[in-house]
Amino acid sequence: MRVGVLTGGGDCPGLNAVIRAVVRKGIEAHGWDVVGFRHGWRGPMEGISRPIGLDDVEDILTRGGTILGSSRTNPYKVDGGVEKIKAVLADQGVDALIAIGGEDTLGVAKKLTDDGVGVVGVPKTIDNDLGATDYTFGFDTAVHIATESIDRLRTTAESHHRALVVEVMGRHAGWIALHSGLAGGANVILVPERPFSVDKVVEWVTRRFEREYAPIIVVAEGALPEGGDEVLLTGEKDAFGHVRLGGIGTWLADEIANRTGKESRAVVLGHTQRGGTPTAYDRVLATRFGLHAVDAVADGDFGVMVALRGTDIVRVKLAEATAELKTVPVERYAEAEVFFG
Amino acid sequence: MRVGVLTGGGDCPGLNAVIRAVVRKGIEAHGWDVVGFRHGWRGPMEGISRPIGLDDVEDILTRGGTILGSSRTNPYKVDGGVEKIKAVLADQGVDALIAIGGEDTLGVAKKLTDDGVGVVGVPKTIDNDLGATDYTFGFDTAVHIATESIDRLRTTAESHHRALVVEVMGRHAGWIALHSGLAGGANVILVPERPFSVDKVVEWVTRRFEREYAPIIVVAEGALPEGGDEVLLTGEKDAFGHVRLGGIGTWLADEIANRTGKESRAVVLGHTQRGGTPTAYDRVLATRFGLHAVDAVADGDFGVMVALRGTDIVRVKLAEATAELKTVPVERYAEAEVFFG
Amino acid sequence: MRVGVLTGGGDCPGLNAVIRAVVRKGIEAHGWDVVGFRHGWRGPMEGISRPIGLDDVEDILTRGGTILGSSRTNPYKVDGGVEKIKAVLADQGVDALIAIGGEDTLGVAKKLTDDGVGVVGVPKTIDNDLGATDYTFGFDTAVHIATESIDRLRTTAESHHRALVVEVMGRHAGWIALHSGLAGGANVILVPERPFSVDKVVEWVTRRFEREYAPIIVVAEGALPEGGDEVLLTGEKDAFGHVRLGGIGTWLADEIANRTGKESRAVVLGHTQRGGTPTAYDRVLATRFGLHAVDAVADGDFGVMVALRGTDIVRVKLAEATAELKTVPVERYAEAEVFFG
Amino acid sequence: MRVGVLTGGGDCPGLNAVIRAVVRKGIEAHGWDVVGFRHGWRGPMEGISRPIGLDDVEDILTRGGTILGSSRTNPYKVDGGVEKIKAVLADQGVDALIAIGGEDTLGVAKKLTDDGVGVVGVPKTIDNDLGATDYTFGFDTAVHIATESIDRLRTTAESHHRALVVEVMGRHAGWIALHSGLAGGANVILVPERPFSVDKVVEWVTRRFEREYAPIIVVAEGALPEGGDEVLLTGEKDAFGHVRLGGIGTWLADEIANRTGKESRAVVLGHTQRGGTPTAYDRVLATRFGLHAVDAVADGDFGVMVALRGTDIVRVKLAEATAELKTVPVERYAEAEVFFG
Repeated sequence: MRVGVLTGGGDCPGLNAVIRAVVRKGIEAHGWDVVGFRHGWRGPMEGISRPIGLDDVEDILTRGGTILGSSRTNPYKVDGGVEKIKAVLADQGVDALIAIGGEDTLGVAKKLTDDGVGVVGVPKTIDNDLGATDYTFGFDTAVHIATESIDRLRTTAESHHRALVVEVMGRHAGWIALHSGLAGGANVILVPERPFSVDKVVEWVTRRFEREYAPIIVVAEGALPEGGDEVLLTGEKDAFGHVRLGGIGTWLADEIANRTGKESRAVVLGHTQRGGTPTAYDRVLATRFGLHAVDAVADGDFGVMVALRGTDIVRVKLAEATAELKTVPVERYAEAEVFFG
Repeated sequence: MRVGVLTGGGDCPGLNAVIRAVVRKGIEAHGWDVVGFRHGWRGPMEGISRPIGLDDVEDILTRGGTILGSSRTNPYKVDGGVEKIKAVLADQGVDALIAIGGEDTLGVAKKLTDDGVGVVGVPKTIDNDLGATDYTFGFDTAVHIATESIDRLRTTAESHHRALVVEVMGRHAGWIALHSGLAGGANVILVPERPFSVDKVVEWVTRRFEREYAPIIVVAEGALPEGGDEVLLTGEKDAFGHVRLGGIGTWLADEIANRTGKESRAVVLGHTQRGGTPTAYDRVLATRFGLHAVDAVADGDFGVMVALRGTDIVRVKLAEATAELKTVPVERYAEAEVFFG
Repeated sequence: MRVGVLTGGGDCPGLNAVIRAVVRKGIEAHGWDVVGFRHGWRGPMEGISRPIGLDDVEDILTRGGTILGSSRTNPYKVDGGVEKIKAVLADQGVDALIAIGGEDTLGVAKKLTDDGVGVVGVPKTIDNDLGATDYTFGFDTAVHIATESIDRLRTTAESHHRALVVEVMGRHAGWIALHSGLAGGANVILVPERPFSVDKVVEWVTRRFEREYAPIIVVAEGALPEGGDEVLLTGEKDAFGHVRLGGIGTWLADEIANRTGKESRAVVLGHTQRGGTPTAYDRVLATRFGLHAVDAVADGDFGVMVALRGTDIVRVKLAEATAELKTVPVERYAEAEVFFG
Repeated sequence: MRVGVLTGGGDCPGLNAVIRAVVRKGIEAHGWDVVGFRHGWRGPMEGISRPIGLDDVEDILTRGGTILGSSRTNPYKVDGGVEKIKAVLADQGVDALIAIGGEDTLGVAKKLTDDGVGVVGVPKTIDNDLGATDYTFGFDTAVHIATESIDRLRTTAESHHRALVVEVMGRHAGWIALHSGLAGGANVILVPERPFSVDKVVEWVTRRFEREYAPIIVVAEGALPEGGDEVLLTGEKDAFGHVRLGGIGTWLADEIANRTGKESRAVVLGHTQRGGTPTAYDRVLATRFGLHAVDAVADGDFGVMVALRGTDIVRVKLAEATAELKTVPVERYAEAEVFFG
């Protein structure tokens, strides 16, 4: 048997751990040939592949990125894309595919399965916003890095009696903000799921200063002030013009400085959150995902995605898996509010 | 309302995060007075306590250890111990207790509830061997530290063509060995749940050397070779005399060296695994446990323990919680075996 | 004898290590009373102080920030400021001062010594731009943090075939950029000492992409393109308008994207570089500075600053110490250029 | 021109950074062919080599170990060893060698130069015990790792009111113990240069417990109690029998427990100290060593070793460089004693 593996979409710590597990189990337990397709779906479409053996994956568990490269190519948006994939797989004698990626990659995986190609999906989103699994790998690493930064920023904030706004990843879901904010002891946490009142933020910040501490505000990049959308849509640049240039973190730091008269600074963590070596947690999760994806292929159980439920790895239909975005529920946010101010 | 909190048993990263969450939510959400009892159950027995306010917990989230101190005192093994506790609580006007600890501490919590004292438990075991919860805080930190060490040891092993045996914590359960072994890319993982064959270990090690890599063997402190118990019981010191002195890691490194003729070294990670700042994962888990313990007290729901199930914090009866040791199941160990050799 | 200690200027990892060493040696070796003045020079001017004993410094070695607080108050810019200090010192029976700070703080220390107050200086600048000492504490920590970030950003850059611009601290001196750029394997390093040619940067970046790697560009916040000053002075905002808003990093990332057609992103490390626990190197250096400052006071050798020369701690006159900014010399920058492109 | 490079002796973080700098500068600045010899001096003796190009060193800066492998082979202890090296170099057209290693490797380098082979040395010793240079790379990494461990152990010691003995590397020189002890806030530091009085250690430990803190004792593996040598020589095993089995750390922990009645534990950091990614400090130092070694070769200045003096890289004669062991001087140890107890 000959099985292909590919990675699609953005960088995420743990991709290599999945690849390693697939190769290792495919070869050691099943005697398969494993083939790596390069650059996401471009690989099987254009026939860019190479065999991956045990030696190729010896040294990759601890490394960020993906040895296969990635892309956002979608064969369903390319003329004859699906036919090309089928031809390449037939030509190379590849019997099944393991596709590691986010919503887009898994969406293609689902359609391909419907179209007769055997695909098993492995979920990947640093934002943890995929509903069908408790957690995705990469998320713990992002939270870990953001928390380390918050730890460091606290002493600086305290020494200078400043407000510090830390902007973390999360365009549509506030999981990284919520978890790193809780772990870092943030005094305000702002998420995309819940438009925030600047007055309320100023109130928390002021209370903090009155208690003679320095406030740390963790804000997801996708968080917006109440009415922020409208203002942006109407193009009023005075009030929110900074948003596009410097992001919500910079905008909020300015607002806090203006309204409280206190020094206020923003730090935008940016891409540091998604690179580098994965945490132990993410290595274990990614490894287990890889192993169970191989099991699904061995069982001929295609059109599924591996997922974490409690401490178990289970299989869910790709159709369900990509159905909806998992956002921070009201009660989880409420849980954190007791630490605000 | 006046609520007491105490920590019992061994050190574990995240204890302070629980205390902080209890104090913060107790005061901010319920207006309680929170009282810290010192030295585990000795505190409420001997009346050693002090009020804990918001300022006392400002700075403790990131710190290992416990600001309350700990002990292994068991009031049920002290004459009149339970009566003393009741008298102290009555005297200090304490209405309920939150007890953070392992099997022993929670066992006392259960009995006290039966005896009419309102107690809510928070589980704490670095070994992750408590059945009623998916994970306990401290475990992720221990795995993280062990994994960092394995990462460092790999290059040394490779440079010197040596076998390296890493002994990690885990007397009765192999969770730390399993997870850090998977995360560190270990070539053999040995756990207390499964007596190991030295011949098999030597086979894996040899195969590894033949592939021109250096083997890393992760062994839980409680792992034993097949027949190890008997040998130890009969007092044959020649074969296993080293075990008591240097631990299983040292013993195994010697065995490997003797049987393969290759250099072999042991590193015993020891107490470094259970101290210092908790990982972000453990801080979030410990914080959520603390918040939900307060909810249980507020609900008057005593005799329960908070527990993680998937991504939810739930309550379980203390009676169930302490009933059995959660060991590494056969299938989880089997999952890892594909990486051996 | 009664000796005061104070910290002035910006936050810097290692301040608490100096304070601890001063207190420990002052008390243990000399039997002094040690007094901490709060908020830099404001403390001795306004009489805000408290005794510091051994217990106060037990727990501070590993912590960022300063337990004494800081400020930028300059008694020579306050009416009667110096007289106030003399009066406070006389009143509190303080015989000598140890002042930990940068150029401004040490400038005051020098003048005060001339005016009859016994002061010993301890140099502090995260930028490492003080000429009289090989290194200052805080610098190694800043370089360590910047390097960790570069390590993480590399895999992201590679996975996405992007240029990544990392903006680090250094308004007037490029030491942090130079050292973190060397340690992180940067493909271009830009420092304030040397206006850069954007054409040349684009050439290096292009070469890097041609070799199928992703370029990492480390730029000090104070670095400017050739002609940048003039352009800024003449107020031409089109070309350099972004500089003020987003900093040189963002500006440069835009330039690279525009000129190469490749995706390009900026990460501004900002305040994360100056907070949190010091590296072992900085803890040792800060500790030794504190010990030797006590020796100078004990010798009655005022108007001096402790400094590192090779592996020795020496004393230099404060007058020399604050005379000139230590910038990156031409040959040190040239040394690094072999790694560009 | 064709230049060979090799690494000899034990593992040390930074070896790959030297190799990368040599290759990069050799090729980019001088247009050399660079050849890597494998397994230390075995490589040039047996002709085991391969060309190293820019791509080979792209990814190695952050990695521990050495891509060239290492050995302790000494051509002067092999019949005709030197002649073999000359023949291989002539055969492969190699004009000069850069040898990275410790005392042994550099001793061979010196003799080879005397025997007409052009060699430039790069010093490598994790123990920092080479007299001709302020610091060697690898040392800062070892101190960093030991300090992180001490930080973690402190909270465990405090929570359990235990004495914790941390055994670090250093057979003949106590530099790692001294620096990690200072950086970690150790309460006793014991080094090979100074036989210690167990009574004195017990006194410090006791004082610490009386102040209600938990003592941390950092001991170099080569430290010995007063009279320890004699006792060992006379073979009295009762008193010091544990020394050989468990090392000085374990022995000392037992002594402390026996004499104070307090719980006492030993942690032996072992090989974790010498593997894994180098600190930023070590990467910069190693890189600069590599660059300057190339300069020396380009100048035809053989028989020298590069060395750090203050912030400069200088050249010293190999003869001087290997003449004597740099141990911890009396005054540096005395400096630290103020923190004992």
